[in-house]
Amino acid sequence: MTEKAQIGVTGLAVMGRNLARNFARHGHTVALHNRSYGRTKELVEAYGHEGTFIPSERAEDFVASLERPRRVVIMVKAGKATDAVIDEFAPLLEEGDMLIDAGNAHFADTRRREAALKERGLHFVGTGVSGGEEGALHGPSIMPGGSKESYESLGPLLEDISAKVDGEPCCVHVGPDGAGHFVKMVHNGIEYADMQLIAEAYDLLRSVGGHSPAEIAEIFKGWNEGRLGSYLIEITAEVLKQIDAETGKPFVDIVVDQAEQKGTGRWTVQAALDLGVPVSGIAESVFARALSGDPKVRAAAADLPGPTATAGSGGADLQADVEQALFASKIVAYAQGFQQIQAASAEYGWDIDPGQMAKIWRDGCIIRAKFLDFIKQAFDKSPDLPSLLVDEYFLDAVSGAQEAWRRVVATAAQQGIPAPGFASALAYYDGLRAKRLPAALIQGQRDFFGAHTYRRVDKDGAFHTMWGAERNEVSA
Amino acid sequence: MTEKAQIGVTGLAVMGRNLARNFARHGHTVALHNRSYGRTKELVEAYGHEGTFIPSERAEDFVASLERPRRVVIMVKAGKATDAVIDEFAPLLEEGDMLIDAGNAHFADTRRREAALKERGLHFVGTGVSGGEEGALHGPSIMPGGSKESYESLGPLLEDISAKVDGEPCCVHVGPDGAGHFVKMVHNGIEYADMQLIAEAYDLLRSVGGHSPAEIAEIFKGWNEGRLGSYLIEITAEVLKQIDAETGKPFVDIVVDQAEQKGTGRWTVQAALDLGVPVSGIAESVFARALSGDPKVRAAAADLPGPTATAGSGGADLQADVEQALFASKIVAYAQGFQQIQAASAEYGWDIDPGQMAKIWRDGCIIRAKFLDFIKQAFDKSPDLPSLLVDEYFLDAVSGAQEAWRRVVATAAQQGIPAPGFASALAYYDGLRAKRLPAALIQGQRDFFGAHTYRRVDKDGAFHTMWGAERNEVSA
Repeated sequence: MTEKAQIGVTGLAVMGRNLARNFARHGHTVALHNRSYGRTKELVEAYGHEGTFIPSERAEDFVASLERPRRVVIMVKAGKATDAVIDEFAPLLEEGDMLIDAGNAHFADTRRREAALKERGLHFVGTGVSGGEEGALHGPSIMPGGSKESYESLGPLLEDISAKVDGEPCCVHVGPDGAGHFVKMVHNGIEYADMQLIAEAYDLLRSVGGHSPAEIAEIFKGWNEGRLGSYLIEITAEVLKQIDAETGKPFVDIVVDQAEQKGTGRWTVQAALDLGVPVSGIAESVFARALSGDPKVRAAAADLPGPTATAGSGGADLQADVEQALFASKIVAYAQGFQQIQAASAEYGWDIDPGQMAKIWRDGCIIRAKFLDFIKQAFDKSPDLPSLLVDEYFLDAVSGAQEAWRRVVATAAQQGIPAPGFASALAYYDGLRAKRLPAALIQGQRDFFGAHTYRRVDKDGAFHTMWGAERNEVSA
Repeated sequence: MTEKAQIGVTGLAVMGRNLARNFARHGHTVALHNRSYGRTKELVEAYGHEGTFIPSERAEDFVASLERPRRVVIMVKAGKATDAVIDEFAPLLEEGDMLIDAGNAHFADTRRREAALKERGLHFVGTGVSGGEEGALHGPSIMPGGSKESYESLGPLLEDISAKVDGEPCCVHVGPDGAGHFVKMVHNGIEYADMQLIAEAYDLLRSVGGHSPAEIAEIFKGWNEGRLGSYLIEITAEVLKQIDAETGKPFVDIVVDQAEQKGTGRWTVQAALDLGVPVSGIAESVFARALSGDPKVRAAAADLPGPTATAGSGGADLQADVEQALFASKIVAYAQGFQQIQAASAEYGWDIDPGQMAKIWRDGCIIRAKFLDFIKQAFDKSPDLPSLLVDEYFLDAVSGAQEAWRRVVATAAQQGIPAPGFASALAYYDGLRAKRLPAALIQGQRDFFGAHTYRRVDKDGAFHTMWGAERNEVSA
């Protein structure tokens, strides 16, 4: 009997190839398959020495080369390509086998696929994999959904190849069916917000602070040593210090200022809207990218009046103020994202442990940061924490950031620097802590024009005022 | 031969009943049908004297009582109920007959239904109807989609019962298939934004200005005479001057400050995300309602630190400043909504005339306002206007509002009043007019961690920097 593979990978573009190599480097025998056999051969030729691979040209041979229960990682484009691969492999698999979708699928698709394959006796595991190509090869953060049973068989392999923090894997069973892809989606949404906030901090330091990109790189380098320490802050410093070889200008000045997006930020906001969770920070970051990417409207609007920021007008404290604003706004973005995860967990019965999500994001993924230790601790202490903002550590941080944060938002408004992320985070914060919100007026308007009724602060029930008549109140 | 009805209405809850009465009052013979016959009888008993009704208990008789081509208005709950009614009536209808869905359907459902019924030779017309119960009876703003052919037969009846401005109907053929429901959805999204901005203005006048609800009612009454003149401003004054009979307190103070929503605001934002149009003002208003409606998180967050606004600290100009901020932010919200309509029109090939949308919103609907005349004129002059903000009238308005707008946003931030609508509108404005956006840094980050490539300002093509190696640039 020939040796069988513990895991197989179909779809050997760079992400699939690197995952396969990662498994092999960890001593697992890896079955390989790709729609065109060329890629499979290339992998074995280039990296065959890294471990044991069993390449197959035909899907049937690939499936036959796997030990039971079979574990087949699918790494193809999200959408139709994933369905096509599932349709190809499902008939070849046997009860208890696993299909693992490691692409960026929408969690609703994952739910649909999981339910369909469960009827055929197969496990379908939608798993988030974060960390890009490098992460896939050297240790990503892995967020698998699917059944508990499938995790018992698959989990150890995934934990093996995941990033580690103090020896602990950045991989945990997130929850059933689409939970893994949902959490990965929110991870990306938070990443959008984080990047937007960093971009606003840079903009203020440059336009109001009058600093050069190289100077700002140094500021970010300093911040990276403190509580903001994170991969995104670190690479921001690297990007800002880069000089374009061709022109000798700062790299950031030769890049077209139109941010692109692939969809997971948008999905996050859309899902949050369905759940009724206000993720304004993520929404503003998605919209900021959309705005930047519309050259036609921007060209038309280029002459709209407004102030020009005065470089150096930010005062001596600007740098410290911006650090405070960035940290406080970042806390809000994470608070919103984690609330969305909690809401989805309740809605879909996923029983997600938010602290574990913070734990597995501490390395391997794009938003890895020191900061996540505190989020983990906050949810470990209190798994039903209604908002990160009320955890002691974060409460202390936003308390301390208060005045600086407000100065920065006010400065941006006065000097004409767009800071939608900072401003919306502060507005959210002030909304949450407001004793009374003008939402009462909105309820009054709704009752006036649509008889939508309202509740009273002093007794139970729904009420309607006869606005069109004597304006007396009736029980509704 | 007995007289036949020109139009039929099935679903005789208050909206359907009022539409039926409106048709009858305009001299049309109206066929009536309802799932339970009791409602049909009640209508005829109570309002039979208003016109000619032909009530039927059975769907077959209802259909038989209509002249050809038949026009059947469906006024039932959006979703499954609509599909059920369609399934009931479609088999009873003949080629060229029309089913008109006047409920608040999602435009994607309308597109699906229109396509399915077209295959059966039937016209399906999804139409927006705005103005609530009163509008339905006395003249709503009507936004019909569906085929041009169906509008030729149906349009005159709808125009008859619609609101009129200077004799011109607030009803026009919006565009094919789902265009009508799409435009109605965006109308509602704009309405959300408008209401949120009004609520923020009220909050600032009260908390910072130190004015009582009754005083603020007078301020709104004054504003209603000026450029802000609109139904929503008018009813805001009415709501604010209302005194609760039971407690003697201002009505707005006895209403629970948790704003509710029915879904069209959320749909608008979700659709905008799909289209890539930044509707941050609508999104912030939907999120502000969601935030207000989460008492658990608000209670937990009630002790978050922050300033308490000092009543009377806003300075003598506060009232005028808030009016400027409100007007400028409102322009931004409408600019975003109209951009969404233009984007959808291009995406779906609807050929919507944006000026006509402004025209039919001038009366009958919730956002009716003087202001819409200027929007109509702007698009009449330039149908492809990239943004309302660059039209002369609106450009003048935001130019004049500049400094006050910025002061208000800065004041809200400093004094701890949540003003997500004002703040995000200003950030959007400053984003649009920015010569360089920090989106360039985001593109650099994306290239760093994901090899997503970037474009250069000085030459064509896509580029990637080898960040992990010598950091030289390569063509991608």
